[in-house]
Amino acid sequence: MTLLYEGKAKRMFETGDPFVLEVEYKDEVTAGNGLRHDFAPGKGRLINLITSDIFGRLEDAGIPSHFIEKTGETTQLVRRVDMIPMEVVVRNLAAGNIIDRLGFKKGEEFAPPLVEFFLKDDSLGDPLLTRAHVIHMDIASHDEIDELRKRANQINVALIDIMEKMGLQLVDFKIEFGRDKKGNILLADEISPDTCRIWDVGTGENFDKDVYREKTGSIVDTYQKFYEKMKETK
Amino acid sequence: MTLLYEGKAKRMFETGDPFVLEVEYKDEVTAGNGLRHDFAPGKGRLINLITSDIFGRLEDAGIPSHFIEKTGETTQLVRRVDMIPMEVVVRNLAAGNIIDRLGFKKGEEFAPPLVEFFLKDDSLGDPLLTRAHVIHMDIASHDEIDELRKRANQINVALIDIMEKMGLQLVDFKIEFGRDKKGNILLADEISPDTCRIWDVGTGENFDKDVYREKTGSIVDTYQKFYEKMKETK
Repeated sequence: MTLLYEGKAKRMFETGDPFVLEVEYKDEVTAGNGLRHDFAPGKGRLINLITSDIFGRLEDAGIPSHFIEKTGETTQLVRRVDMIPMEVVVRNLAAGNIIDRLGFKKGEEFAPPLVEFFLKDDSLGDPLLTRAHVIHMDIASHDEIDELRKRANQINVALIDIMEKMGLQLVDFKIEFGRDKKGNILLADEISPDTCRIWDVGTGENFDKDVYREKTGSIVDTYQKFYEKMKETK
Repeated sequence: MTLLYEGKAKRMFETGDPFVLEVEYKDEVTAGNGLRHDFAPGKGRLINLITSDIFGRLEDAGIPSHFIEKTGETTQLVRRVDMIPMEVVVRNLAAGNIIDRLGFKKGEEFAPPLVEFFLKDDSLGDPLLTRAHVIHMDIASHDEIDELRKRANQINVALIDIMEKMGLQLVDFKIEFGRDKKGNILLADEISPDTCRIWDVGTGENFDKDVYREKTGSIVDTYQKFYEKMKETK
């Protein structure tokens, strides 16, 4: 299989079908735009298990994604899409970079949830985009921006439901979208504790990558615990 | 008269009328969020002359502002407003911070012009705001945001007209708005080469504060030349 892309946390390969790719999740973890980089044995398997399960549950909730099926411990098949070069961030509570950026208090509630778009560009530090920027940069049309916001809010509702059953609070998450060969917008990339911020309702404990960013615990143990909680709510 | 406010470039005083303030423009110039600070004798007089003239011409073009009248060399009377804590930036061509922030090429055209909102907060470095931020932070309502964008575009058209007659190109500018006692939105603050980026159509020469930021000329001489060009087009 031809390697198409290798990023910080995954590889993507072409398959026999031009519209299908294989994703392999790696046992690597990075933070600070690649400044920290570690090997985390078992992480790839857990991300693959969790994101496959979440994308399956989203499908059941009527939210289409690129996900086709899990094919191995660390691999899955996905529909090939042209990625829209934005990170779509949905925030239910203030945490992370928005605190320093806009002066919000940690844990402050956003009602309705706050949806933000960031340009995917490491060299520019993934800057915030307004609707006017997205239009001028020809990243998406007005209708597509509306559609992305609508999907982001639907995904938020579905994820909150999944997390609540696990006794967890969904603080914020990052998603990415692509266009299939017909131009339809599909949720792509992954949804996992690597891309969400999740707090335990009772203890406030992190069930996400912040344990690595803030060096408060083992990322693999945390994701394993998250996955076990998820299985219990099947 | 009671001093109400002293900023980097001006003082504001209460008058006998609770709805009227006096503004005094200072002979000071700063850049880099106050990191550079210089005394520029004659600058206050020029800013007062230019902004008074521009606000008068905008009034003639049907654009209301806080400006009442010039009362002295460096002073003017303005209507008292509650400032909306945002800088509204209108860009016709890419220049300044948007180049490093979003990777635009210097001089790249925005058609339609790009309107951006920034939170006025020095300690946060005046961060970019999306519509959702403005709403969540209770800075302005959806209708007010629409009104601010409409005004910003009207002001842009009027300023382009003023500058074109002077052989100058309006690259971008920053404006601020306030609400009067009835809640009406009024253009406030100032419009001058301190708050605009202006290029000579023929030579590309700067007629704005960039001569100070980039140390390419005398700010007072530049503003004097700008004012003389403006008088010729009366």
